[in-house]
Amino acid sequence: MSQHQATAPGIPKVTEILADWVVTIKGSDIAPDIRREGLRTFVNWVGCAVGGASHETVDRALAAATPFSGKPTSTVLGRSEKLDALHAALLNGITSHVLDYDDTHLKTIIHPAGPVASALLALAEMRAISGYDLLTALIVGIEVECRIGNSVYPHHYDRGWHITGTAGVFGAAAAVGKVIGLNQQQMRWAFGLAATQSSGLREMFGTMTKSFHPGRAAQNGMFAALLAEANFDSSERAIEAPRGFANVMSDKQDYSEILDDLGTRWESALNSYKPFACGIVIHPTIDGCIQLRDELGEEKVRRIRSVELTAHPLVLELTGKTAPKTGLEGKFSVYHAAAAALLKGDGAPTAFTDEMVNDPEIIALRDRTKATADKNCHEASVDILLTFDDGTTVSKRVERAIGSKDVPLTDAQIDHKFTVQSALVVGDAVTKALLETSWKLEELKDAAEVARASVPGSTSKTAAAE
Amino acid sequence: MSQHQATAPGIPKVTEILADWVVTIKGSDIAPDIRREGLRTFVNWVGCAVGGASHETVDRALAAATPFSGKPTSTVLGRSEKLDALHAALLNGITSHVLDYDDTHLKTIIHPAGPVASALLALAEMRAISGYDLLTALIVGIEVECRIGNSVYPHHYDRGWHITGTAGVFGAAAAVGKVIGLNQQQMRWAFGLAATQSSGLREMFGTMTKSFHPGRAAQNGMFAALLAEANFDSSERAIEAPRGFANVMSDKQDYSEILDDLGTRWESALNSYKPFACGIVIHPTIDGCIQLRDELGEEKVRRIRSVELTAHPLVLELTGKTAPKTGLEGKFSVYHAAAAALLKGDGAPTAFTDEMVNDPEIIALRDRTKATADKNCHEASVDILLTFDDGTTVSKRVERAIGSKDVPLTDAQIDHKFTVQSALVVGDAVTKALLETSWKLEELKDAAEVARASVPGSTSKTAAAE
Repeated sequence: MSQHQATAPGIPKVTEILADWVVTIKGSDIAPDIRREGLRTFVNWVGCAVGGASHETVDRALAAATPFSGKPTSTVLGRSEKLDALHAALLNGITSHVLDYDDTHLKTIIHPAGPVASALLALAEMRAISGYDLLTALIVGIEVECRIGNSVYPHHYDRGWHITGTAGVFGAAAAVGKVIGLNQQQMRWAFGLAATQSSGLREMFGTMTKSFHPGRAAQNGMFAALLAEANFDSSERAIEAPRGFANVMSDKQDYSEILDDLGTRWESALNSYKPFACGIVIHPTIDGCIQLRDELGEEKVRRIRSVELTAHPLVLELTGKTAPKTGLEGKFSVYHAAAAALLKGDGAPTAFTDEMVNDPEIIALRDRTKATADKNCHEASVDILLTFDDGTTVSKRVERAIGSKDVPLTDAQIDHKFTVQSALVVGDAVTKALLETSWKLEELKDAAEVARASVPGSTSKTAAAE
Repeated sequence: MSQHQATAPGIPKVTEILADWVVTIKGSDIAPDIRREGLRTFVNWVGCAVGGASHETVDRALAAATPFSGKPTSTVLGRSEKLDALHAALLNGITSHVLDYDDTHLKTIIHPAGPVASALLALAEMRAISGYDLLTALIVGIEVECRIGNSVYPHHYDRGWHITGTAGVFGAAAAVGKVIGLNQQQMRWAFGLAATQSSGLREMFGTMTKSFHPGRAAQNGMFAALLAEANFDSSERAIEAPRGFANVMSDKQDYSEILDDLGTRWESALNSYKPFACGIVIHPTIDGCIQLRDELGEEKVRRIRSVELTAHPLVLELTGKTAPKTGLEGKFSVYHAAAAALLKGDGAPTAFTDEMVNDPEIIALRDRTKATADKNCHEASVDILLTFDDGTTVSKRVERAIGSKDVPLTDAQIDHKFTVQSALVVGDAVTKALLETSWKLEELKDAAEVARASVPGSTSKTAAAE
């Protein structure tokens, strides 16, 4: 049945305008500071993808997908396996999110890079894409994804949608559509094909299926663009139609968030990078505890009698586990996070292993840690009071943690984060070369060099070939 | 963040109970009449898949998918191309729906076979499945799909979801999970992975993307089961959780529709098969006009001066196009449908070609056809009044058209429908052999025989080999 309904009067042609913008914008239209933030997003994402590559979630996804993979053109970052570009996009979206360590658009809690970069880099090993063009497409894709997210947030998220999946598929479609040169009509179709695949439930949080969402968004968004390229047609107003994405999947539809200041206001420039491998609500605590350890020294922190934390109630609601048993559970324990930060100076994935969570010294300090909810305390702040064996005390207030919009990670801190997690998976030599290659993205004639540089043993192979 | 919420008191463990039922039911638990209806569903589906195989929608999807296909194990029914089983499931879901001619569960307007049978038959060419087991899984998958559909219909559909896609993915996951032998926990995970991929917007109706929905549901449901087989974990209560499928995607959640009389009340037995290749609201008109032509003879219908139809207002609302230009538009014109039925005796896909819609004789009669809306007329009925050149009149009332629940298609009518559409694509010899093989499904040691028998030229190859 033809059941198109008229769009309500006054509703702008959101899909058409957005598609036109994606098709026509040039890399040189994007200011250098915006491109620089896009590059930081890319480097942070590569580190996270490699960092998560050896997780069992990835092993299991690979076991299921490999028998169906086409020509193995594209690298699963940080591993020796290759898959067809669609499946590689899926896997890299999983790896880069599995440690909950990837980038965050704080306004919507979208993790923007996973769906977009996973699709682009996988495609770059199949069809030639320069590093410059890949970065342009990454920034454009993230812009589309975050603006569509803004238009429905928070109602859409509150209803139960995992917005990284549901908005991410549009970002991947836009980015891939951009690099393969879709025309304006095809780009509208790509948005239609993305909209009709938009999915991902928050119910899946705490299971492997959470990291499946950015992976599937990458894969589905890429396929949306490829279908449109083959002139597989679709709705041309899938975002704003009465039965389109925004109306079906949200009670809020603010299209000005999508259309206003396109090309001058950049959501992609608001991206942030987690310094710590857990939910953002514990970051002030970890930041403060590491600062205290650095100030007091290792010997002094061993003489802590008790730790008292005062934080917003949400912190305890989300991360109030007092006796975590596994590394994953440790991410939901502000007590473990504080103890690990004080005793080991660590908030990286290494702080959230089963071993760390079951370390007797950490357990002992965790059990001497109290947390008090105070609704007058800002969600992004914490007060920490240490009492030592001799009865003396030291306190610290963290207004905003590092990694927040107010205290962004420096390039050096991104390097450190990258190096720590990547080295565990592919070793120091590959990590060093990969980090260098990633920062050089815009100069690369072939963006796929980044993917190849992530393969374990790739540095020794290069050395042998020389 | 771990954001699991408690399920409201009194909500049954829907996902767990349904998963247990799927895992434990045996083929012999299904009564012969239910299995027989399942076989009719299968045969009708094979005919539709072959009938749609040469459509340009399929060509375009193939162009996009083929470069990414894995080992070509599985047939695109009615074509010479093979793809990996996941992509074949996608393509067969598209082919079997593209002519709007597939089966219908009238309570929910779900087209049940597409998502389920497309997944099963594609998989049968990769992993051995007997015809008996395939039929069992088809019936079980359709049951899961239709019951989940019932639990949220009509609110879910009214909100804008294309229920064949959104419910179909559960059916495919259940059916594939059944044949690959998932255990109970894995089947719960498969439902979780299906729920989080549930998607498809009604906005896409009238475009190629509509038939993408059953295809993607088949592919995604199959992958959900394969991931669960690899112990990729997921929510174990994805249907009923506060942020699960039913709550996020519908305002209605009637879990008794899923759980009551499992194994005794069979939704799959309510399946119906369209005799005509267009929306159900015009079926009474076509049925009546073909009956009139049969009764009056070809010569007499050429002397019709005018046709007057009296039908429910919905008929005109949905199919009121007075001057269709293309075959696709012809499906939304009760005027064209009446004229083609009277002059050609045709309601098959051949009645809705561009050529038929632009046939001068049909246009002339179409222009002499009037339709009057009467809200006292049942949606499934029509009154037809013919006035001849000599002023005489003949009238006919159709209470319920053939293909409805009250007047189901006979096996012979299913054969006729199958033969007419399949012969256009693969010729008479392949059609004859394929139809025989399809009816013999339960006796086949290897269900994949059906797929192989659909390939153009397969009969001559068999003959040459003998």
